[in-house]
Amino acid sequence: MMNKELMTAKILEAKATQGVSWEGLAKAISMSPVFTTSACLGMNSLTEDKALALCETLGLDKSVAEALQVCPKKAWDGAVPQDPLIYRLYEVVGVYGDTMKELIHEKFGDGIMSAIDFTMDIEKEENPKGDRVVVTMNGKFLPYKAW
Amino acid sequence: MMNKELMTAKILEAKATQGVSWEGLAKAISMSPVFTTSACLGMNSLTEDKALALCETLGLDKSVAEALQVCPKKAWDGAVPQDPLIYRLYEVVGVYGDTMKELIHEKFGDGIMSAIDFTMDIEKEENPKGDRVVVTMNGKFLPYKAW
Amino acid sequence: MMNKELMTAKILEAKATQGVSWEGLAKAISMSPVFTTSACLGMNSLTEDKALALCETLGLDKSVAEALQVCPKKAWDGAVPQDPLIYRLYEVVGVYGDTMKELIHEKFGDGIMSAIDFTMDIEKEENPKGDRVVVTMNGKFLPYKAW
Amino acid sequence: MMNKELMTAKILEAKATQGVSWEGLAKAISMSPVFTTSACLGMNSLTEDKALALCETLGLDKSVAEALQVCPKKAWDGAVPQDPLIYRLYEVVGVYGDTMKELIHEKFGDGIMSAIDFTMDIEKEENPKGDRVVVTMNGKFLPYKAW
Amino acid sequence: MMNKELMTAKILEAKATQGVSWEGLAKAISMSPVFTTSACLGMNSLTEDKALALCETLGLDKSVAEALQVCPKKAWDGAVPQDPLIYRLYEVVGVYGDTMKELIHEKFGDGIMSAIDFTMDIEKEENPKGDRVVVTMNGKFLPYKAW
Amino acid sequence: MMNKELMTAKILEAKATQGVSWEGLAKAISMSPVFTTSACLGMNSLTEDKALALCETLGLDKSVAEALQVCPKKAWDGAVPQDPLIYRLYEVVGVYGDTMKELIHEKFGDGIMSAIDFTMDIEKEENPKGDRVVVTMNGKFLPYKAW
Amino acid sequence: MMNKELMTAKILEAKATQGVSWEGLAKAISMSPVFTTSACLGMNSLTEDKALALCETLGLDKSVAEALQVCPKKAWDGAVPQDPLIYRLYEVVGVYGDTMKELIHEKFGDGIMSAIDFTMDIEKEENPKGDRVVVTMNGKFLPYKAW
Amino acid sequence: MMNKELMTAKILEAKATQGVSWEGLAKAISMSPVFTTSACLGMNSLTEDKALALCETLGLDKSVAEALQVCPKKAWDGAVPQDPLIYRLYEVVGVYGDTMKELIHEKFGDGIMSAIDFTMDIEKEENPKGDRVVVTMNGKFLPYKAW
Amino acid sequence: MMNKELMTAKILEAKATQGVSWEGLAKAISMSPVFTTSACLGMNSLTEDKALALCETLGLDKSVAEALQVCPKKAWDGAVPQDPLIYRLYEVVGVYGDTMKELIHEKFGDGIMSAIDFTMDIEKEENPKGDRVVVTMNGKFLPYKAW
Amino acid sequence: MMNKELMTAKILEAKATQGVSWEGLAKAISMSPVFTTSACLGMNSLTEDKALALCETLGLDKSVAEALQVCPKKAWDGAVPQDPLIYRLYEVVGVYGDTMKELIHEKFGDGIMSAIDFTMDIEKEENPKGDRVVVTMNGKFLPYKAW
Repeated sequence: MMNKELMTAKILEAKATQGVSWEGLAKAISMSPVFTTSACLGMNSLTEDKALALCETLGLDKSVAEALQVCPKKAWDGAVPQDPLIYRLYEVVGVYGDTMKELIHEKFGDGIMSAIDFTMDIEKEENPKGDRVVVTMNGKFLPYKAW
Repeated sequence: MMNKELMTAKILEAKATQGVSWEGLAKAISMSPVFTTSACLGMNSLTEDKALALCETLGLDKSVAEALQVCPKKAWDGAVPQDPLIYRLYEVVGVYGDTMKELIHEKFGDGIMSAIDFTMDIEKEENPKGDRVVVTMNGKFLPYKAW
Repeated sequence: MMNKELMTAKILEAKATQGVSWEGLAKAISMSPVFTTSACLGMNSLTEDKALALCETLGLDKSVAEALQVCPKKAWDGAVPQDPLIYRLYEVVGVYGDTMKELIHEKFGDGIMSAIDFTMDIEKEENPKGDRVVVTMNGKFLPYKAW
Repeated sequence: MMNKELMTAKILEAKATQGVSWEGLAKAISMSPVFTTSACLGMNSLTEDKALALCETLGLDKSVAEALQVCPKKAWDGAVPQDPLIYRLYEVVGVYGDTMKELIHEKFGDGIMSAIDFTMDIEKEENPKGDRVVVTMNGKFLPYKAW
Repeated sequence: MMNKELMTAKILEAKATQGVSWEGLAKAISMSPVFTTSACLGMNSLTEDKALALCETLGLDKSVAEALQVCPKKAWDGAVPQDPLIYRLYEVVGVYGDTMKELIHEKFGDGIMSAIDFTMDIEKEENPKGDRVVVTMNGKFLPYKAW
Repeated sequence: MMNKELMTAKILEAKATQGVSWEGLAKAISMSPVFTTSACLGMNSLTEDKALALCETLGLDKSVAEALQVCPKKAWDGAVPQDPLIYRLYEVVGVYGDTMKELIHEKFGDGIMSAIDFTMDIEKEENPKGDRVVVTMNGKFLPYKAW
Repeated sequence: MMNKELMTAKILEAKATQGVSWEGLAKAISMSPVFTTSACLGMNSLTEDKALALCETLGLDKSVAEALQVCPKKAWDGAVPQDPLIYRLYEVVGVYGDTMKELIHEKFGDGIMSAIDFTMDIEKEENPKGDRVVVTMNGKFLPYKAW
Repeated sequence: MMNKELMTAKILEAKATQGVSWEGLAKAISMSPVFTTSACLGMNSLTEDKALALCETLGLDKSVAEALQVCPKKAWDGAVPQDPLIYRLYEVVGVYGDTMKELIHEKFGDGIMSAIDFTMDIEKEENPKGDRVVVTMNGKFLPYKAW
Repeated sequence: MMNKELMTAKILEAKATQGVSWEGLAKAISMSPVFTTSACLGMNSLTEDKALALCETLGLDKSVAEALQVCPKKAWDGAVPQDPLIYRLYEVVGVYGDTMKELIHEKFGDGIMSAIDFTMDIEKEENPKGDRVVVTMNGKFLPYKAW
Repeated sequence: MMNKELMTAKILEAKATQGVSWEGLAKAISMSPVFTTSACLGMNSLTEDKALALCETLGLDKSVAEALQVCPKKAWDGAVPQDPLIYRLYEVVGVYGDTMKELIHEKFGDGIMSAIDFTMDIEKEENPKGDRVVVTMNGKFLPYKAW
């Protein structure tokens, strides 16, 4: 069985060779760019039809499609990320975590925003003073069950 | 000089006594709920007029308004957050960090999303299968300077 | 506003004075022992009627009931617990984590067991070779959303 | 001597080729799915007859059966797990650890639940609002010896 | 309710005032020095009669005796101890851990030495080249349960 | 020069092939099982005659005997051990460290038990309620030098 | 696709073979020594023309030039650096961090010095008592956005 | 003896009351702003005359001047700083540490830049696209002694 | 009983008031400066006569002398020291640790330098190019016992 | 270019083959044993003539001599060393760090002992009660620059 690391390497290589973008790849399988990219990087799994469609687009064989369907064991490097782009997101969680907690509890009561029943979208907002990155997270509110 | 911890305690007490929400407090000073809450929790500073307006709304004296204007030393508990609501956000950064990096580089080139020239908005999306939390982050793209 | 630490101290003191058990306290408010105890220890919140009932049972005043309704900021000591009873549970997660992942994915597909829409029950199983602790966890399966 | 990593790889490969599930494999050797899976993942050892039966089921040779009988050196990645499914179990220990301690001491006195004289069972509970995972842990109560 | 820290402080103070040794204190309540000391330091609990006997010996009141009966939440400073006496014991576990594992598995099979059904004794062995400390640990062998 | 890892692998392989136990191997070179095992695992060094005797017993060549004589650089995995057998020993140091410190200071004065001028013995104590592991540590008391 | 580690190895080898300095290499592509070196070490990316010019200077092929244009994932060894030269810089941040914060806030208000819109220069200052290293950092001040 | 924390608190209070800036305070004692601020924050010591001059400027008594002369025990919070302004400096050390090492070795040979025989200056560079922070560090090069 | 922290505070205060140096204090009790200072800082214990002599010199009462005789629980801040003077010593251990190991094994065989049967001396070596600190450590070689 | 790890391996092999000691090797190149050993272990660099002399002594080729001249990136395993010989040195820094700070400040004023302009010597002191290791460190005192 092909592991996720090799699967990702094969996808990145085919993607570069064919000059296709993540956006293009996502469109080709009718899914969002964020989810498609995360599955290719080994952080989510695809259904069989989406996996086959992705491999067809990239000219990859069935073993890659099988690897794309495996439930991943998610992991990342280090408790505190070092790459500046990722660190800034971590910093936002540190700086605004308690604020988000206050406002979500005020609007919804005791509970959390799911990271599983969850979608994310990343857009470019053109701006004469410098373009802006717009990240939209949408997660189901899960109230704490009392029993 | 009043420190930020005492400032936050006085604001939370007055807010509870007067039964005002974070949304209401933000509206009273014509700022966003996220920024207003973060300043009250000691993670951002207010300008003098906003600080005075906030204290007037809550019936707090000038020493609190002064503390609200001080540049904060931002800090949070632990490298990995434990509260489930905040942990889920940390997990999102871990799981989707490389995905966000791929897509931002694809759309913008080499650089980062600023966490300083940055705004955040938290909304409730009603949904018959369970309401959803919608978090929108908007940060200026900063290209790496080459020299 | 009374904080959760003082709330817990007052409940433990009244509980000891009145000689009531956690089981008894839970029965008095018609909730489970696990949830009732966790709320008293500051790790969950109660609805207003349950909080008032609990305080009435223990002869505690309204400020404790208010503290019981506050959404808690959950936290625990150290990444690795030291108390032997709690460490054994941590060890079970370490030793059987991948096994649980394999079996849950086999039975349910890609997703997780919720720790929010979740209940737990602790029972004593009498056994001539030594009584046994039976812990039952029941959490909603949350499939990863693909989008 | 074959090490546990290679043993696990050979078992996973044979299991996939033959299309047998963990449940099916466990039934074939008349043991529970949790224990069988954990032994295959290298976290427990099998007796000679069970090891041979398992290898016969999967068409694996004697070297795998020998590796299955070796006392494992148990280890896991990181003090805090990152995979969301495993993290939720860790979170349960953090959030409910003191609660479990209170209730076990109340029912049994000073001591712990053994993680060695211990069994675990994982079931699917069908539910129209979403199926549920039911995890049952059963460990011998060990009273602290006083001397 | 008196907490364990105050309990220990009161015991140490009375012990110093009365000039009684740990050995003497243990003899007075007919228990071992190791267990008696560990209970006084808050790492084990005593039965009611032993707790009362200990307090009578030291001239302490009932609140100390009650605190001695509480199930302790065991904790220690730092993952790696710093005091040289305690560090040397930690080093022994590091240097000889795998050796102990090999020999215990060779003699007993797969399982562990219990730290709960466990006793310890510390003796002085007189020796012209320098006296020696003899530590004897005696723990029940617990075989891993297979199911 | 053969390193310690390869030396250990060769010894374990020969030991398995020849079906000799650690006890038997120790007897063959007239040393204790604990020391012999620890040297084979790379945590101690042997004198030339013992190293040659051990290699003769196992049918190993001179390069292994040379590696057995090298002063080892001792190291172990992680500050907190994870294998349950080794963790229990670590837990004993945590739970009883201060107790051992009190009793050793009471019997010997200010100083430590050496982990260098040190021996250890592991025995099986048969017991109808379950056999017991008896570990005896014997270390020279080293008084702190004052100057 | 060539990864950054191999790219750096090829550049270092060619640089040594050709006896060219970092200063010389930077001059050859009309960029600063700091930025050029950091790109060669895999911590920044070059534009296509600069990457091709650098490879031409060193006699390296197009695959290296492609690797130089990839947005790097920045990472470094350990939270606290160990090499003495790098540690001294870390120590400066620790010792003078709060001082820098006070003075930047005094001169600019609430905000930070960007590490992205940032340049650095390293010069040698000759001095009869011992030459001195002069490091000049120049980063855009980013005021915290309030919204 | 007044400790450094109280000394800093008294200085900050007097500085706020008198409305004097760090720059102004430094000018009043004819020292640099960076060194003066760091001494007031407890990270450096002043000579007797400078300490007395600083206290005279701020209207503080002799006990503060004495505390300013004490050799400080330097310490900072956490291995990785969290405040964004300080973190960016830490990130610069991480990202450019190896680059600085290459260039300093190229210009000076094997050795380090001293953090003790060291000065720092912070200036504001006005710029229509946004003002810039200019930090200049000047440290003596210390060659490794060979012996 | 006075604890070591209060003991140290009283000694430092009396030492400052009386204007006596550590060297002078050591001479007054006929012990070395290093050992005397370490005992006053709570890292070693004194015999009764030395403790009384020290208290007499400083005009301190018997409770301080008693505290000086207590066996200390040694501890220090953080695994990696931050104060530059102490860090440099830590760095020496890191950089030269393996070198010291090679040379001590070459001269003495397998064993260690004791940190208990150990003395240390700190001297000033005058030098026109800058005075030098000379630290002499003298520890008994302890050969590993084989058994 | 040969890296430092391979360089060290080649030196150790040649040293063993030729039966030369570290002392002998140092004498052959007219340098101290500590510095020579540290350079061979990759923790310091040699000048060209010393590197060539060392390689001639050991019969090694020019590539080793080149590697010996490279400025090393110094690093060591783990924040807290585990090998007992090295740990004892770390413990000395922990136990006596504040004492050394007090005495160096008393003798020299505010500053540090350099670990760069630094020499170390290790000698054997014969003693009928057991030979002793004498380590002498000699580092330039660096006063903190005030500016």
